[in-house]
Amino acid sequence: MKVKQEVLKIKAPKRGFFVITDKVLSTIDISDINIGVLNLFLKHTSASLTINENASPDVRVDMEEISSSLIPDGYNYHHSLEGTDDMPAHFKSSMFGVSITIPITNGRLNLGTWQGIYLNEHRNYPTTREIVLTAFGM
Amino acid sequence: MKVKQEVLKIKAPKRGFFVITDKVLSTIDISDINIGVLNLFLKHTSASLTINENASPDVRVDMEEISSSLIPDGYNYHHSLEGTDDMPAHFKSSMFGVSITIPITNGRLNLGTWQGIYLNEHRNYPTTREIVLTAFGM
Amino acid sequence: MKVKQEVLKIKAPKRGFFVITDKVLSTIDISDINIGVLNLFLKHTSASLTINENASPDVRVDMEEISSSLIPDGYNYHHSLEGTDDMPAHFKSSMFGVSITIPITNGRLNLGTWQGIYLNEHRNYPTTREIVLTAFGM
Repeated sequence: MKVKQEVLKIKAPKRGFFVITDKVLSTIDISDINIGVLNLFLKHTSASLTINENASPDVRVDMEEISSSLIPDGYNYHHSLEGTDDMPAHFKSSMFGVSITIPITNGRLNLGTWQGIYLNEHRNYPTTREIVLTAFGM
Repeated sequence: MKVKQEVLKIKAPKRGFFVITDKVLSTIDISDINIGVLNLFLKHTSASLTINENASPDVRVDMEEISSSLIPDGYNYHHSLEGTDDMPAHFKSSMFGVSITIPITNGRLNLGTWQGIYLNEHRNYPTTREIVLTAFGM
Repeated sequence: MKVKQEVLKIKAPKRGFFVITDKVLSTIDISDINIGVLNLFLKHTSASLTINENASPDVRVDMEEISSSLIPDGYNYHHSLEGTDDMPAHFKSSMFGVSITIPITNGRLNLGTWQGIYLNEHRNYPTTREIVLTAFGM
């Protein structure tokens, strides 16, 4: 049984949803794992990780618009000292989650044809985000 | 330490929420794992997996109605070429998620009394969905 | 490779969001795991687990207010025999999720500086909740 762990540091170009599958795969080598899983864990509370469509850029725009329509920016929160986008960012982080586990099969991520790994940046002014990658298997 | 992996192919009878615990357990044998986990990963971006009530059919109806009320069907999305239900399906897929990890104890899933595994089909015309099941433990 | 499993039983003081990181760490000893993961699984369908801000109590108040604003209490659900807070609790449980996997590095949870583990109690009258903790690694 193998266990390995790496850290991916990444900064989104702006608020929104971004496909990072290639960056994940260039950070950790899973080619020697025949059957296993890869866990991704984002160490932040105002961004999140998800799996969604890797093809149409429109989907990423809609993801941002729908989520910001459900949980609008504003001063109508108790926690608003850090800006109108801060508390909505915390909520979206819990709604989408910060931890994903993906199967590994024959040395590759066993994603569907249309699936990509997304970094969801919920703050207006992105900072560098750390994602811990832990692979298990044999 | 054991690792095993199987694929469950399943098609929902219609759009909505469906309990699939039995189908999962008949696809992968975890009876030889004393302590461990089972990861379920759905390889699609317009359906999702979740854990919820396994008893009352009313809960499944409400899950569909609440989620479709929060993220309504319509043409008011950038990504609408594939139908009015497509972009809402993508959003719900990320909101509920496609990856769940459940503990195994004494050769059985350690679910609560009222917990069942759900396949959430978010498209109007369901297609066959693939779920990768990976079990770890000893 | 090590695998260990413990159960944390915990009751929230009231409906809302509560940081339980210390209670998790006093229930399972991960100090002998150099590289690995800890999976937390809540065995209930009307509460949930998430990761969010561990510092500001305001964030926890807003999490409750935003989630209850999105999915309001009421009798307008098919499943309402168990109270006006029951069906909303089921939905929130699926929205936030009941399963989280966190990396372990050098015998400690590899959480971000501001991250805490939350128990989200969605019922008006809390009951004791069971969380299965499973640690893997070497």
